[in-house]
Amino acid sequence: MQTFELGSVHPSALVSAEATLGSNVTVGAFSVIHDGVEIGDDTVIGSHCVVGEPTAEFYAHGDSEATKCTIGARSVIRSHTVIYRGATLGDGFECGHRVTIREGSVIGIGVRVGTQSDLQGDLSIGDYARLHSNVHIGRLSVVEACTWIFPFVVMTNDPHPPSDTCTMGASVRRFAVVATNSVLMPGVEVGEHALVGAMSLVTRDVPAGRVVVGSPAHDAGAVADVVCKHGRLDHVYPWPDQFRRGYPEGVLPPPGATS
Amino acid sequence: MQTFELGSVHPSALVSAEATLGSNVTVGAFSVIHDGVEIGDDTVIGSHCVVGEPTAEFYAHGDSEATKCTIGARSVIRSHTVIYRGATLGDGFECGHRVTIREGSVIGIGVRVGTQSDLQGDLSIGDYARLHSNVHIGRLSVVEACTWIFPFVVMTNDPHPPSDTCTMGASVRRFAVVATNSVLMPGVEVGEHALVGAMSLVTRDVPAGRVVVGSPAHDAGAVADVVCKHGRLDHVYPWPDQFRRGYPEGVLPPPGATS
Amino acid sequence: MQTFELGSVHPSALVSAEATLGSNVTVGAFSVIHDGVEIGDDTVIGSHCVVGEPTAEFYAHGDSEATKCTIGARSVIRSHTVIYRGATLGDGFECGHRVTIREGSVIGIGVRVGTQSDLQGDLSIGDYARLHSNVHIGRLSVVEACTWIFPFVVMTNDPHPPSDTCTMGASVRRFAVVATNSVLMPGVEVGEHALVGAMSLVTRDVPAGRVVVGSPAHDAGAVADVVCKHGRLDHVYPWPDQFRRGYPEGVLPPPGATS
Repeated sequence: MQTFELGSVHPSALVSAEATLGSNVTVGAFSVIHDGVEIGDDTVIGSHCVVGEPTAEFYAHGDSEATKCTIGARSVIRSHTVIYRGATLGDGFECGHRVTIREGSVIGIGVRVGTQSDLQGDLSIGDYARLHSNVHIGRLSVVEACTWIFPFVVMTNDPHPPSDTCTMGASVRRFAVVATNSVLMPGVEVGEHALVGAMSLVTRDVPAGRVVVGSPAHDAGAVADVVCKHGRLDHVYPWPDQFRRGYPEGVLPPPGATS
Repeated sequence: MQTFELGSVHPSALVSAEATLGSNVTVGAFSVIHDGVEIGDDTVIGSHCVVGEPTAEFYAHGDSEATKCTIGARSVIRSHTVIYRGATLGDGFECGHRVTIREGSVIGIGVRVGTQSDLQGDLSIGDYARLHSNVHIGRLSVVEACTWIFPFVVMTNDPHPPSDTCTMGASVRRFAVVATNSVLMPGVEVGEHALVGAMSLVTRDVPAGRVVVGSPAHDAGAVADVVCKHGRLDHVYPWPDQFRRGYPEGVLPPPGATS
Repeated sequence: MQTFELGSVHPSALVSAEATLGSNVTVGAFSVIHDGVEIGDDTVIGSHCVVGEPTAEFYAHGDSEATKCTIGARSVIRSHTVIYRGATLGDGFECGHRVTIREGSVIGIGVRVGTQSDLQGDLSIGDYARLHSNVHIGRLSVVEACTWIFPFVVMTNDPHPPSDTCTMGASVRRFAVVATNSVLMPGVEVGEHALVGAMSLVTRDVPAGRVVVGSPAHDAGAVADVVCKHGRLDHVYPWPDQFRRGYPEGVLPPPGATS
């Protein structure tokens, strides 16, 4: 038996009669597509995935508030990924292996999410955002367009855990960068073009265009003053001045526009 | 073919003739239930799970010291989870996706464990403990009843890795809270109702009812003095004074009893 | 139906006619072995694995630069693991569940990799290296022989993310130890027999035989001066003086040789 073929549903996959697949959709071996799923044209679902996973109420009462799960066209969902009913993913979505996307996640176009990242639901991810591996995006988080979130970053939401009187999602504004292993405390906002250094604990808002580092994080200057470590670039931030790979025309500010 | 149906074993699942399933048990598509597994009534096993995974000796010599894997009644085990032979899970257990629970894990009743958490075995988790996503509980750890462990917390056990002369598990006492990305060093004890702040490195015991923060962690006052960040609550710790969702009557101390 | 049998390919597994399996190879239920995979004698592939996963170009253009995926003899690959075409794994490899190994990963003999670790490709791992759970090894990293990398360690490679003008992999030299939750910044080198304490942010090279701790990491003495925490050992580092389990004769320096 063929192990994989682009443009076809593998015979071992289970696709609900209540799911809607566009043209030229691929579904890998041993994947499960539940009721209420809509998948756009030319999208690839890898093997061992679950799309349209029911929410917790289903296991408790046999039904689920959320009824639909929408995945855009031209997307690539890699193996062992779980996407819940109640999630909405825009066109051109691409993710690594074993990603979890829960109900109420609203994801723009051209977004990439790395292996084992966990989107806890009731959150929004803007167009062309790049989330690397193992990021944990808590409920009520806002991640705007063209941001970068690196491995093991956690966006928290509970100011005094455990509680349920008031959850406060954190926000990452357009073009901001959060480096590996950092934690954003509940309700903090990382401003446009700001940079959070690796392993920082961000306890206060980060103004636009500033660098913060440390635990707790403190201001470390303007992003424009970050010096290139290998001397080949005049300046490295704002990053759209030196890195534009993978973005369509017009999505990033023109080089020099923000510096 | 149906993609999922509560109360039935999916035709694509593999269930050993040497496994014992209670009444009204659900087993999802493409799951494997090995020999020696006992599953209580009304429990749901999601898709792509492995229950009764053999221990390392099996791959080396073809047999395994551990012979049984027990899962209580009314539990929900989500997709892609692996539970080893030699693990014992109490009634009302609930977990996220891709959880790993190894041999010698003894888990009480009403416990919840989040997506991708890794319980390394030879450890105990008390009743109604709440472990969030991606926690890593090393061998010989003790997590008592009604505790909270947040994402990416690591409980270590080797005082000078690598070694095997003496492993020292860490402990988290009743009602204690360990916030996201913290590390408990080998042998440390987090006392009852204590609070470990986010991204703390806990190198010494934390007395009952105290807050610690930082790397290495230092004392930051009594939990009763933590001020509510949004002003809607008189006090936030001990947390059972303001949060009781999901606990049966009598499990938590009455409000005000410990403050 | 049998749920697992050593030495045989489970009837539910999909094995490409273009894959080559040695003698006495086990393939677990619901695993997929794609074209171009070569698996050595006596190796066990667990259930729900994907071996020979195509690289990103395949999803974009239907073909893949990398054509082969080689796994040595006497290896154990646990369930839900994904190994890409273009990866080369030596004999006696052993890994936990849900490991990801991407194209261009060159892995020596006798290596162990823990559950959910993510090897991002274009990197090398030396003989008998031990990577624990959830480690993240960025592209261009070099992990030499007989090293130890503990849970949630991240080896980064981009000096000013996002960029693509110059990636700088980090290196861990022979016998070095990197403790849990530490981050190695781009291009740093951890010297032979050095020790990086838990939750350290390593921003500069660590000389051979030194201990560093903190964020950013600072020197904390010679490894030979680390005092045994439970008093049963005269000295604990260099670790081959007190720990030799699992290494063949001649691989580690004789006790006392380096201290």
